[in-house]
Amino acid sequence: MSASSQDVLTQLDATSTQPFPNSKRVYITGTRPDIRVPMREISLSDTVLENGVHEINPPVTVYDSSGPYTDPNVNIDIHQGVPEVRRGWIEERDDTEILSKVTSLYGQQRQTDPNLSALRFSHLRPPRRAKAGRNVTQMHYARQGIITPEMEFIAIRENQRLHDSDQLVQHPGESFGAALPKIITPEFVRDEVARGRAIIPANINHPELEPMIIGRNFLVKINANIGNSATTSSIEEEVEKMVWSIRWGGDTVMDLSTGKNIHETREWILRNSPVPIGTVPIYQALEKVDGKAEELTWALFRDTLIEQAEQGVDYFTIHAGVRLPYVPLTAKRLTGIVSRGGSIMAKWCLAHHQDSFLYTHFEEICEIMKAYDVSFSLGDGLRPGSIADANDEAQFAELETLGELTKIAWEHDVQTMIEGPGHVPMHLIRENMDKQLKECDEAPFYTLGPLITDISPGYDHISSSIGAAMIGWYGCAMLCYVTPKEHLGLPNKHDVREGIIAYKIAAHAADLAKGHPNTQVRDNAISKARFEFRWADQFNLGLDPLRAIEYHDETLPKDSAKTAHFCSMCGPHFCAMKITQDVREYAEQKGIIDVKKAMESGLKEKAKEFKKQGSEIYHKI
Amino acid sequence: MSASSQDVLTQLDATSTQPFPNSKRVYITGTRPDIRVPMREISLSDTVLENGVHEINPPVTVYDSSGPYTDPNVNIDIHQGVPEVRRGWIEERDDTEILSKVTSLYGQQRQTDPNLSALRFSHLRPPRRAKAGRNVTQMHYARQGIITPEMEFIAIRENQRLHDSDQLVQHPGESFGAALPKIITPEFVRDEVARGRAIIPANINHPELEPMIIGRNFLVKINANIGNSATTSSIEEEVEKMVWSIRWGGDTVMDLSTGKNIHETREWILRNSPVPIGTVPIYQALEKVDGKAEELTWALFRDTLIEQAEQGVDYFTIHAGVRLPYVPLTAKRLTGIVSRGGSIMAKWCLAHHQDSFLYTHFEEICEIMKAYDVSFSLGDGLRPGSIADANDEAQFAELETLGELTKIAWEHDVQTMIEGPGHVPMHLIRENMDKQLKECDEAPFYTLGPLITDISPGYDHISSSIGAAMIGWYGCAMLCYVTPKEHLGLPNKHDVREGIIAYKIAAHAADLAKGHPNTQVRDNAISKARFEFRWADQFNLGLDPLRAIEYHDETLPKDSAKTAHFCSMCGPHFCAMKITQDVREYAEQKGIIDVKKAMESGLKEKAKEFKKQGSEIYHKI
Repeated sequence: MSASSQDVLTQLDATSTQPFPNSKRVYITGTRPDIRVPMREISLSDTVLENGVHEINPPVTVYDSSGPYTDPNVNIDIHQGVPEVRRGWIEERDDTEILSKVTSLYGQQRQTDPNLSALRFSHLRPPRRAKAGRNVTQMHYARQGIITPEMEFIAIRENQRLHDSDQLVQHPGESFGAALPKIITPEFVRDEVARGRAIIPANINHPELEPMIIGRNFLVKINANIGNSATTSSIEEEVEKMVWSIRWGGDTVMDLSTGKNIHETREWILRNSPVPIGTVPIYQALEKVDGKAEELTWALFRDTLIEQAEQGVDYFTIHAGVRLPYVPLTAKRLTGIVSRGGSIMAKWCLAHHQDSFLYTHFEEICEIMKAYDVSFSLGDGLRPGSIADANDEAQFAELETLGELTKIAWEHDVQTMIEGPGHVPMHLIRENMDKQLKECDEAPFYTLGPLITDISPGYDHISSSIGAAMIGWYGCAMLCYVTPKEHLGLPNKHDVREGIIAYKIAAHAADLAKGHPNTQVRDNAISKARFEFRWADQFNLGLDPLRAIEYHDETLPKDSAKTAHFCSMCGPHFCAMKITQDVREYAEQKGIIDVKKAMESGLKEKAKEFKKQGSEIYHKI
Repeated sequence: MSASSQDVLTQLDATSTQPFPNSKRVYITGTRPDIRVPMREISLSDTVLENGVHEINPPVTVYDSSGPYTDPNVNIDIHQGVPEVRRGWIEERDDTEILSKVTSLYGQQRQTDPNLSALRFSHLRPPRRAKAGRNVTQMHYARQGIITPEMEFIAIRENQRLHDSDQLVQHPGESFGAALPKIITPEFVRDEVARGRAIIPANINHPELEPMIIGRNFLVKINANIGNSATTSSIEEEVEKMVWSIRWGGDTVMDLSTGKNIHETREWILRNSPVPIGTVPIYQALEKVDGKAEELTWALFRDTLIEQAEQGVDYFTIHAGVRLPYVPLTAKRLTGIVSRGGSIMAKWCLAHHQDSFLYTHFEEICEIMKAYDVSFSLGDGLRPGSIADANDEAQFAELETLGELTKIAWEHDVQTMIEGPGHVPMHLIRENMDKQLKECDEAPFYTLGPLITDISPGYDHISSSIGAAMIGWYGCAMLCYVTPKEHLGLPNKHDVREGIIAYKIAAHAADLAKGHPNTQVRDNAISKARFEFRWADQFNLGLDPLRAIEYHDETLPKDSAKTAHFCSMCGPHFCAMKITQDVREYAEQKGIIDVKKAMESGLKEKAKEFKKQGSEIYHKI
């Protein structure tokens, strides 16, 4: 079905919305009834001891980015959009006004073009903007000492109820100077946002958003890119991809569309998205001048920013660090400029022989950002596109400029994160992180990979998840996924799933290595299930239960295999886990080891310790 | 087709043997005509400059583990086995004798059992053994100051002809104390083997072997596991998997079969394998006592070692470090013992309440190893099977014992490497490597992953390749692959390919980060191809050309797209690489940048420098 079809969207694919086996979406209520924080609760089966006694394994809650789509109690109508969970919070702050019509000229034109009526989202809301002289950013509130409902929502969400778990034992981590608290409180969230060390991308025109946070002292997040290009894809595919992305764990989604009808596509995506949506406004601006970079103007770009801000985009990638003097530094590179936005701005700078309007009008951009609470994602237009070009003069010159711009944005209380590379060999990754922390004063870093080699087309989700895991450990706050199709073509749903899971692995591994509180609970629970041959629990606690089941069943499809004490990898007589259980039983019978006692002292005692410390501090605010 | 079928093997699948596009197998001759070192040469297309002038891109040679299978000039007959490239070298040393029949009782029994005649490899060779009092290990020769043909072969192979490349520019690495020379000489190979810092697994009964080396100062290697289990697989599938594994880059292959007919399966694999074959002899020993670990005896195990040594197995995993006092240390673990070999030995130790025959008869094992030149792979029977159990007392106690055993093996001039974990969070990986280097005096480390989280069943090739890349960087010499089926079932061909490519990425990234000489040549060549829109060259220089082509063609199948200056990811107007080329042209026209000059100074000058240093030192020995 093409984008020009009369019937834009009918229904989401059931594979995008079906709850995972033994999982249900639950809501934890905060200090007020309209703070309902979603989590996914995975029920586990009992452990059956030798004597036949059943021991209960409590359910494990995990972070849930999937929105209402996986909640069978919510009726989804793509034409209406998802519930506006933030509406009341925005309204009660009483610092915004509803406009009679959209401000941007282009937006007005698209809304009145009769040829687009079939494509247009039918329940358009009038846009909201800060009242004159008001600043509506979460950073502004934070700096006033205000804990917003968004912040409390996030505190509950980050803790995932895990500080009360039976499986709390965890290795102390190495956090490279991060400040990880044992429990995330709303006050901690506020403080980190005020300090600029975390951002809450939350446009006032995106009330459908379930708030989340990006910062080095919180769970590492991942972003999934979607978006059509001139050669393929259409509106319904992109909405479907957004829902698909958040199902597998995308914490934010960037709509990188460059083809036709991107205004309308974006509207559909926003109205149906419970996660922050990011864009690169220069892409659309370039469409408006038929791809002629040198014809871009501040006026046109400004209109595009307002157009997208009034639709509800939560963060903008803006390549304001691509300065004229840096462009020649890229000429001696092996792969020049590989960022689309970067190359557009470089072309503009050369054509006009001056710094770009993104740089020269940066404070005016801040004025727009704070009227809607759009966060900056300061783009790394000069990131390296190959191992050879990593950590070069051009890249680091731009990063220094991004540091300066961060401080300007902060003067306006505009939330800011910084984009990073790219292609970097392992031993040069740490320098990227350290320099970013220093130059940008700990503003959140948001990197694309990095890929740690150039030679893996078709498998770049793997190359880049290696770099992503490492930089996440070193302090990167959000990891932009790469799919297996990177460098080759536009990803399909299969590729999106592969890319997201690779990045969920990287993000979780980074949390574990940093020693982020309670991260190891899920690892402990799945390992216990694995060791006890609770196959279904092992599948369900994994990042992709359906894939695990599918793989297991390829060789042992029968239901009886789900309780068998072996799998096809080793067969019944060679399973080490089975033999170990035999060892324990044998040792116990002979009185050599008191396994029960050993287990008690090893795990359960420690769990008690942790429990004492925790207990729901966020209820006390 | 089952293993009991009359017609064991007919022909290999063409997908396992077809040369890669624009690749051909070439041979570099050493100081004598029978040293013919295989490499894969990838031809590239010309760069077409704006003025229409063609610039030649010289071919790139890459390490080739695929054996004669990808050489169209070699006729492969699975029933005959592959050519015996080492036969002359072994014969001319005149320190071995040909036995009239196999020594092991079990081997004799299998060879005379008429029921097995249909399964049996038909061209059985009589086995070879060291003459009385002689030691035929490569380490022994090395310590006598002898450079064997195997060592010269390896020196040429490791250099890959790349020190003469146009694309030599490379980041200096961080090698954590490794001693990487600019060019590998045969003398360097000898010295590293003598020192125990590298091994050349090369049984005198495996003359089909194309020699390779495992050590921290050489290219990082990867191992692929194959092997049937009682529930699935058969002989022909396993031979096919071996050929498939080396096609994608497996440097060694472990046959972990535990089912029926493993003696016959092993013979077929060895006679057709140009790479070292490793086994875990205790698996077969356990089969011989019907899975009853406590019934294992030294006599039975000894017979099994000789049986396999006379077939030509190049390295044995031996879990001699699982000592009785360590077994109770595993009782308080979350996942006990997860190594099959480890759990078998633990059970034996408990049943007999004494240290195992592997430990008490270790010197006798050394006597067998040196009579055939089988290398030790000292098994980590107590490796952690979960994040919770990483780096614990049991694991490190065993590692210390492995260090002691290494020194005993070295007294016998027996080549030795050490196996490592397992499941380890990122921040605890380095401790594993450092402790191994210290305890085992830099004997090569050979690790399974490690997986850096437990929560990714179905994607454990990714979790573990992250850990593998990191430990490879820190100094690990060989990485044992993990497939997507890990923890779930027996891998099929698709899984083997996925696992191997994930590990080729890890190994290559480790080489890059260490600063291994000339490693970046391939990255530079592929990035240049990518930047110049030489699509076919980009595909062909990648680790899996066929996958890259397949992915590209999913959205742009036409031949014209292979020369197009864009792909479907961004479409024609938004390709950053295209825009950058426009930027360069524009800048040049306006006289802003002299791109040519910048490129010259950036890349080509440096290449000249490197070239001066190199130039085929290995011809001078």
